[in-house]
Amino acid sequence: MKIIVDAMGGDNAPDAIVEGSLKANEAYGVEIALVGKGEQILHVFEALGRHELPAGIEIVNASEVIGIEEDPAHAIRLKKDSSLSVALALLRDGRGDALVSAGSTGALLSGATLIVKRVRGIRRAALAPFIPNTAGGFILIDCGANSECTPEYLLQFAYMGSFYAQDMMQISAPRVGLLNNGVERTKGTPLQLMTYELLEKAALSGALNFVGNVEAKEVMKGACDVLVCDGFTGNIFLKTIEGTASFFMSELKGIFMANAKTKLGALLVRKNLLQLKQRLNPDAIGGTALLGISKPVIKAHGSSNAFAISNAIHQACNVAKSDIAAKLHENISSMKTPEQDAQQVE
Amino acid sequence: MKIIVDAMGGDNAPDAIVEGSLKANEAYGVEIALVGKGEQILHVFEALGRHELPAGIEIVNASEVIGIEEDPAHAIRLKKDSSLSVALALLRDGRGDALVSAGSTGALLSGATLIVKRVRGIRRAALAPFIPNTAGGFILIDCGANSECTPEYLLQFAYMGSFYAQDMMQISAPRVGLLNNGVERTKGTPLQLMTYELLEKAALSGALNFVGNVEAKEVMKGACDVLVCDGFTGNIFLKTIEGTASFFMSELKGIFMANAKTKLGALLVRKNLLQLKQRLNPDAIGGTALLGISKPVIKAHGSSNAFAISNAIHQACNVAKSDIAAKLHENISSMKTPEQDAQQVE
Repeated sequence: MKIIVDAMGGDNAPDAIVEGSLKANEAYGVEIALVGKGEQILHVFEALGRHELPAGIEIVNASEVIGIEEDPAHAIRLKKDSSLSVALALLRDGRGDALVSAGSTGALLSGATLIVKRVRGIRRAALAPFIPNTAGGFILIDCGANSECTPEYLLQFAYMGSFYAQDMMQISAPRVGLLNNGVERTKGTPLQLMTYELLEKAALSGALNFVGNVEAKEVMKGACDVLVCDGFTGNIFLKTIEGTASFFMSELKGIFMANAKTKLGALLVRKNLLQLKQRLNPDAIGGTALLGISKPVIKAHGSSNAFAISNAIHQACNVAKSDIAAKLHENISSMKTPEQDAQQVE
Repeated sequence: MKIIVDAMGGDNAPDAIVEGSLKANEAYGVEIALVGKGEQILHVFEALGRHELPAGIEIVNASEVIGIEEDPAHAIRLKKDSSLSVALALLRDGRGDALVSAGSTGALLSGATLIVKRVRGIRRAALAPFIPNTAGGFILIDCGANSECTPEYLLQFAYMGSFYAQDMMQISAPRVGLLNNGVERTKGTPLQLMTYELLEKAALSGALNFVGNVEAKEVMKGACDVLVCDGFTGNIFLKTIEGTASFFMSELKGIFMANAKTKLGALLVRKNLLQLKQRLNPDAIGGTALLGISKPVIKAHGSSNAFAISNAIHQACNVAKSDIAAKLHENISSMKTPEQDAQQVE
């Protein structure tokens, strides 16, 4: 297994990326192709006390870097020798099994679509993070790749999320829910109403385990394994969880630091609280899969440290093993809107 | 000050509604008109040891009840003698200063619009709850009254929320933010893009303190005093906060109950933790204002207990004092889309 890593993407690049790659190489025995400015990468290895490239790690030189502030599609077209473009070309050419980047999400989306291409028939790639909840966790799809969606996109997201959950969460028939403002089938905007019908039809055919509309509150209690929504709503949903979690952590800190009595209380629950914090730590998961691309692509957080990068590489190995792209390819005929089905029948 | 209360609406009606009304009458000296099945209401007073109607409380008989499962618009048209319909007619006729109902949100929306009417020129009424955050709290508008919105609706929500925050939060120039999936002005769907322009124009004229797009995460840290969005997104946002809060409370309970050591820790922080729980308790706020209606209407939670109803009545008094409808009426000319402005100029 070889993972291609964009060494120059992310707030802490290349230091954290190189260190995280080294960790993953040592921990999981995975081969790594580090793509970026060779001298800078070697310099990081030097600083880590490695005067020679460790076995299983190679450097692929790329002279440019795509900044987080650049227009994604423009940057991908312009900077042919950027670390991201070169890394994506390596993935396309089969010179690695999966790709990890902590750089610009937009550039990764544009680049993966342009260079690696989507699975044939898939309309849009989608970001599918794993989110912890009371029941363990669930897959959210899409969390921000596509602000505007059609019912057909959401149908495809449901399939992609379902295949992903089967492999990554080891669930044979993942419960797919549609994020909505109520559980009744009449709820939502026309997008949700039309998507409901498509998902219901897919459920009747046995292809999906659609459990209906789910409310945001119930998702956190475990109402579904895969939560389907457009990228705008998914982004609001995800960032609201993050914001509320930060709010709670900050309030708890205030409570524990209030006085000598509460400080003692804090000491007594410290270990258990750290376990919760660790469970909610996005770094422990490492990254978010970009599903619908013909080869495995993992987006690591922009603020990733070495620990997060190492976990993202581990996750990339798992996604590469599961071969979701092949499942999508096999099932693409079921992932079309009724209009298209009707045309084929006629 | 007299508040009209729908005695039959809500999961705990009429018991909690009557008891909460009595509490508010005693605590704030507010007069109450309890609307509903007279005998049932008197029976609750009996059970509370009140064999005569307390001074300042009257009963207005209404023979029907609108259930939470009924089609809202249909029920309002059909059940002319429902507690909600009668209560709304009393409000319309000036026989009270504000209305409180814990019944069906949809029926309250339909009924308030049909019977009491919107402020002239206001396109849609919107639900505007107060939500606690690290900085104290903010007003969310709309949280679910309108799943589908136009940029003009959102412009009007911004004004409504701003006037409301001025009066209820005592802020002279409330910071109005547009909920979006990024802070850049190019973010979001066409709805957010077009709304941004309208809000920016309103800010230039000095009418609104528009602080731009805000991300869900930043709102919880205090990025704005008024958060504007369509009702679908607002509903997801609000229920995600509730779900994440429940998740945290449940996890914390697990942590504190883990073993003898953590149980002791729990005892030491108990008081401070209860204060936080109380601050986040929706019952302490009592209800959500339905803004844009020509007279004050407050939606109390369906699960309201007596404490929540008492607080909702107190809140109704404050909204009645602030007279937001008059402010909306005075400023309605600024609350139109550019197309309409242009037509007027020509």
